[in-house]
Amino acid sequence: MVNYKLHYFNVGGRGELIRHIFAQAGVEYEDYRIDLKQQWPQLKSNYPNGQLPVLEVDGKILPQSYAIGRFLAKKFGLAGKDDWEAAKADMYIYGLEDVLRKMFPLIGALVLGKGDKEEELAKIKPDILEPFLVKYEQYLKDNGGQYFVGKELTWADIAIADFIDRLTWIDAHILDGHSSLNEFVHRIHNLPNINKHIEARPKMPF
Amino acid sequence: MVNYKLHYFNVGGRGELIRHIFAQAGVEYEDYRIDLKQQWPQLKSNYPNGQLPVLEVDGKILPQSYAIGRFLAKKFGLAGKDDWEAAKADMYIYGLEDVLRKMFPLIGALVLGKGDKEEELAKIKPDILEPFLVKYEQYLKDNGGQYFVGKELTWADIAIADFIDRLTWIDAHILDGHSSLNEFVHRIHNLPNINKHIEARPKMPF
Repeated sequence: MVNYKLHYFNVGGRGELIRHIFAQAGVEYEDYRIDLKQQWPQLKSNYPNGQLPVLEVDGKILPQSYAIGRFLAKKFGLAGKDDWEAAKADMYIYGLEDVLRKMFPLIGALVLGKGDKEEELAKIKPDILEPFLVKYEQYLKDNGGQYFVGKELTWADIAIADFIDRLTWIDAHILDGHSSLNEFVHRIHNLPNINKHIEARPKMPF
Repeated sequence: MVNYKLHYFNVGGRGELIRHIFAQAGVEYEDYRIDLKQQWPQLKSNYPNGQLPVLEVDGKILPQSYAIGRFLAKKFGLAGKDDWEAAKADMYIYGLEDVLRKMFPLIGALVLGKGDKEEELAKIKPDILEPFLVKYEQYLKDNGGQYFVGKELTWADIAIADFIDRLTWIDAHILDGHSSLNEFVHRIHNLPNINKHIEARPKMPF
């Protein structure tokens, strides 16, 4: 049996997708959570480039959240049925990252208390978040409404559901007018293993 | 035979890695180059999210440069010999992207003439570019000095060589003290197919 240990902070951030993939696959791993204020200053220099998450696989180290996510998705049959589907899943996930990058000031306000949450949200809701939701809702419909890629669950679905769910933590009205996405997020998060993970996890700011 | 058409600007940017992968594989494709000032304003709305590069594969559309790069690398046997090697290649490429993101003001100065090149370079050379070169040189040595991943060429080598080569366009002295990386870039760029591509390509700002 492979021994997995995920090193990340005690937030969702770039670690939560990995936790969801483990959950969906029903694979055991150590969910090692580091406190950003109390522990990280002492631990940072132990990690490649001083960054988290890092996945340990039988003691071997893999940094970079999406490299980890894709590696596990392939292992657990969540990366699409062929190279084209794998590429489509990648494409959707890079698209999430493009949006996430534009949310950094907002996330800073949420996680680190830097700046005003409502102000930062107002800056990006109309021009970044709304167009993203419109576009992804259309992609979902174009693929038949169940999954984003092909006819089975991939890590793209898991990533998109997690990301959009966390947008609703910031703005409970963000899915108003996006009922297909709302239904999608609930459907993915009601998959039994993911649901169990969500019910058990600690409350997080993002 | 698969029909490939790469849509990108007439610069290196996020398209050049894809061109190098095609070159190394010896696979024909249409290298469709769009002029940023003359053509792009009219064409932008035709593309998903108004972004390039886009790869057409027998008429099907794939956006996102790294989704394209990984798809082709897998097709052409340049993505490592197993899932772990594929993940290591991913990791190095995400590391390049982390550096590239910090170079955006510098690249703006180079490509769009926004701001002063020397000033922007001075801001990131000691704290971003130098540590990156030190770290990647060490990774290369740790893996035996020939390749970054495993014992054969991967798209990580191609991406790293292209990226560092382009750093030397900005600063001819950037590899002073990094003779292993210098040797690596020359070795990769002297691979016959890549060399042929480089000799034939138009001059580009980045």
